[in-house]
Amino acid sequence: MRTFDNTRAESYLVADIEVVRWEQFGLGDAMPFSAMWYTVPPGSTSPTDCHPELELSVVLSGSATVTVDSSVAVVNAGGAILIESDERHSVHNHSDEPVLVFSAYWMPGDEHVGAEATEAMAHV
Amino acid sequence: MRTFDNTRAESYLVADIEVVRWEQFGLGDAMPFSAMWYTVPPGSTSPTDCHPELELSVVLSGSATVTVDSSVAVVNAGGAILIESDERHSVHNHSDEPVLVFSAYWMPGDEHVGAEATEAMAHV
Repeated sequence: MRTFDNTRAESYLVADIEVVRWEQFGLGDAMPFSAMWYTVPPGSTSPTDCHPELELSVVLSGSATVTVDSSVAVVNAGGAILIESDERHSVHNHSDEPVLVFSAYWMPGDEHVGAEATEAMAHV
Repeated sequence: MRTFDNTRAESYLVADIEVVRWEQFGLGDAMPFSAMWYTVPPGSTSPTDCHPELELSVVLSGSATVTVDSSVAVVNAGGAILIESDERHSVHNHSDEPVLVFSAYWMPGDEHVGAEATEAMAHV
């Protein structure tokens, strides 16, 4: 087992968005995706982003207002968003607590060759 | 974009652990991993589990006490745990709020062929 603490990891700022990339943990290709945490302060918005990777974002705290092209969705803590390739997206924080997000991202075509995982793992 | 709401999804109980599997969302092989949410009530412990899949668990609320073989780690909301293949693990909730976890899991050998994702995605 390895544990990862978002509050102690190395981070950097993109505007006022704090970003913690998982590359610093040296996991190599142990995971079939790249990962990061990021925090959007109250009242702030992440820079609009657009990339070929699919991105699954899980909201860990706060309430995220996600804009993708002309669609808007509010996702509360616990919920998740899957952003497809080349969708222009940004995350707004209209709440009064920080929005903390965990994102996994991968290139399309990184197929799920382990579909048998579903059957093998019957329990929690 | 698609959004996923853990509070509205179909769930089932394993002992008193509420499990929400992502297979219900019909994503097929869009993601290079399988996924679930699970909730450990205050004072409870998940059944000990052991499987070939690697499992990355992100704690969304509460404080999880994770036992893997003879090791114990406390992971607070925001933090994460990577469980290797065939490690016997369980999650205890010694706190007074539910421990909500998002887990991604995949078979070893589902390699990260998209390592270029790291370079391509310069921004949030």
